[in-house]
Amino acid sequence: MSTVVYKGNIISSESYDRLSVIPNGYVTVEDGMITDVCDHLKEEYKGLELRDYKDRLIIPAFSDLHMHAPQYTQRGIGMDCLLIEWLNRYTFPQESNYSDKEYAKSVYAKLISDFVAQGSFQLSLFTTIHYDACDILYKMLKEAGLYAYTGLVNMDMNSPDYYVDDTDVSLEKTEKFIIEHPDSEKVKPILTPRFAPTCSKRLMEGLGELAKKYDIGVQTHLVESREEAAWAKELYPEFGSDGLIYERCGLLQGNGPKIFAHVIFPSEEEERILKEYDCISVHCPDATSNITAGIMPASDLINKGLKIALGSDVGGGHFLGIYRQIARAVQISKMKEFYEKDYRRIVLANAFYMATVTGGSIFDRVGKIEKGYRFNALIIDDMLDKEYKTSIEDALERFCYIGDERNIFERYIDGNSVDPGEVYQRLLKMEI
Amino acid sequence: MSTVVYKGNIISSESYDRLSVIPNGYVTVEDGMITDVCDHLKEEYKGLELRDYKDRLIIPAFSDLHMHAPQYTQRGIGMDCLLIEWLNRYTFPQESNYSDKEYAKSVYAKLISDFVAQGSFQLSLFTTIHYDACDILYKMLKEAGLYAYTGLVNMDMNSPDYYVDDTDVSLEKTEKFIIEHPDSEKVKPILTPRFAPTCSKRLMEGLGELAKKYDIGVQTHLVESREEAAWAKELYPEFGSDGLIYERCGLLQGNGPKIFAHVIFPSEEEERILKEYDCISVHCPDATSNITAGIMPASDLINKGLKIALGSDVGGGHFLGIYRQIARAVQISKMKEFYEKDYRRIVLANAFYMATVTGGSIFDRVGKIEKGYRFNALIIDDMLDKEYKTSIEDALERFCYIGDERNIFERYIDGNSVDPGEVYQRLLKMEI
Repeated sequence: MSTVVYKGNIISSESYDRLSVIPNGYVTVEDGMITDVCDHLKEEYKGLELRDYKDRLIIPAFSDLHMHAPQYTQRGIGMDCLLIEWLNRYTFPQESNYSDKEYAKSVYAKLISDFVAQGSFQLSLFTTIHYDACDILYKMLKEAGLYAYTGLVNMDMNSPDYYVDDTDVSLEKTEKFIIEHPDSEKVKPILTPRFAPTCSKRLMEGLGELAKKYDIGVQTHLVESREEAAWAKELYPEFGSDGLIYERCGLLQGNGPKIFAHVIFPSEEEERILKEYDCISVHCPDATSNITAGIMPASDLINKGLKIALGSDVGGGHFLGIYRQIARAVQISKMKEFYEKDYRRIVLANAFYMATVTGGSIFDRVGKIEKGYRFNALIIDDMLDKEYKTSIEDALERFCYIGDERNIFERYIDGNSVDPGEVYQRLLKMEI
Repeated sequence: MSTVVYKGNIISSESYDRLSVIPNGYVTVEDGMITDVCDHLKEEYKGLELRDYKDRLIIPAFSDLHMHAPQYTQRGIGMDCLLIEWLNRYTFPQESNYSDKEYAKSVYAKLISDFVAQGSFQLSLFTTIHYDACDILYKMLKEAGLYAYTGLVNMDMNSPDYYVDDTDVSLEKTEKFIIEHPDSEKVKPILTPRFAPTCSKRLMEGLGELAKKYDIGVQTHLVESREEAAWAKELYPEFGSDGLIYERCGLLQGNGPKIFAHVIFPSEEEERILKEYDCISVHCPDATSNITAGIMPASDLINKGLKIALGSDVGGGHFLGIYRQIARAVQISKMKEFYEKDYRRIVLANAFYMATVTGGSIFDRVGKIEKGYRFNALIIDDMLDKEYKTSIEDALERFCYIGDERNIFERYIDGNSVDPGEVYQRLLKMEI
């Protein structure tokens, strides 16, 4: 495969605190990998195919590390309800529909092409308890060429009669799913206990054994709200902390990523666990606003050396594009600063780092426009008004605050241009 | 003009707490006015022209009662700054550009066609200190057929040297603007002191005289943040309260609307003024998040009998569509409920009422789909997924949370269909 040179205003993270900006920069890509990034066209690259994106931005594609695939049809509805009413009126009945394979195919094809449209190419997705629907999602993610972790959801208690598994059935299905969906290069299985209150201790311990046996990671919700944390403690009095359940039951023994959504009120014990097991905490600003859960102490956790990525958390969150969660993470951190005098807000560069570098860190060499990284990248329109051109950083900021998929001019996964509409048609035609 | 019948799922406010929903309802419109709303096609309307919008929603158009027209080019940038830095680095330099008429024409044509696109047909707009630019805005609003209040901004102190008026000049320009822009049926002048800290007492008193002389209303910012309120108190020690300045200086004597943006920390005295003078407080959830001002106690103010409308507050807010501020008002009220134990959050129906009924109340018979009201209305796509159809209310909610101008299928002002692109072309051609 020959080298292609891409030209544009390149933005990537230099560090958690700093954007690296190269105006009119050049990126060379060979076999899907970035081989060079420079501020002028070197002699050796002259004559190669050049794609000149002019004033457009070249940025790394986004990672969405917490999202419920089956809730895509629910996004932006039922938002007047709080968590329990929302689960019982909307979420559980709706998720139970995925026993129907046709329903699953129809929704998942739309969802995955929307991920492509929104520039979220690295994902960690919850599904439902339904084996076939989960299998469909896995195969569609592979077909679309996305990078993803996904797994069958486990829940064997505190769930409605029509949407719950027997403990043994849940464990058997999970093991079968792992065996029949071995690590591919890009899509991989992950343990997905819904959250502590819907999982019995025997289920958790069984999942712990699977984590060890198959050397596999885990994704779940952790101290999502005060109520959830209190409920988990009540159900698991011997552990006294939401996070300890996962450690003691062995779910952190595998080598795969450990992804905890929300982490609003972590105890010292939980912070120890998050650090010791190199876990990723996923900040989902829209969702935690919608369910009135509180605000993740993002800058405090960063100062303690923890890792934070971003998640859309659709349907708790309503908007699929992670770029909007970058804006919302800044906005909501200001609210926390307003109410909690010792808290320090975050800025755009911080949230961009979460959405690209940290989110990308559980995948293979993605999240930066830098030599040695995959060219998983987005070409973003310069959205600044022609009357008032300020900086390249401002152009990125405007995209995060008011842009949408119309402003993503082109999308590259592994150096290949991808088109959401084409992906959608291809997924619809799959015989699964 | 003959009667036209519109069919669709009609949503309007029954009260502050309740939406009125008529599935497959009919609206009859004659000479731009709604003559009937019914749940079946009455015998007498058969044979009339029928526009069947099927599953789409028919809703009243939105009112945006706080927006800075000149800041349109700044939306969604500089959001890492807090208020004072943002004013000095972005806002004041940018607003000073409106001394250039061509700049003003170019931006205002885009802004006004965007208002049309977003379905905000009733407006109250800040401008700059520049007479010609303000004149251009006024004429363009008339040409576009929108309902609006707008006025020249007054600021004679605590402002940069390059963007401030002499007190007498400011008063003279304001009076001239009022005289040369008499009340038209739809666009009307309004006094617009920026906010207390940038207006001297002599300027305020002069504006008070104009309010009385021309029987005209006022729009400004009130207790926008703790810092702003403290600053105003310091500058006006004899009044001891932000709101008293306007009352004592006579700015509330006119018959026009009295519009106060933000109202985050009203004192009892200010609440008395807001009630006594039938003022409207404008809630701008995105803006007060962005500037870390705090959250308006919306439900408390409602319980005290005050009136609240919504504002996009672009550029403090970043997104022009008022429907998004409906969603954000709900979201941010949950955050207030989380942090302030006695506070009660609002729901979608409340915020929709603010955006339509209360916002519309300062204009002539707009804000409802009801007999006797103007047909200022939007036809909204049914955005629910085909796999999971819930209620008509949910379709409205999804539009507010994740919809955009693409989902506004058709727009009516005074019963006439309007097209944003056509409006834009028409405004560009104006010789002003």
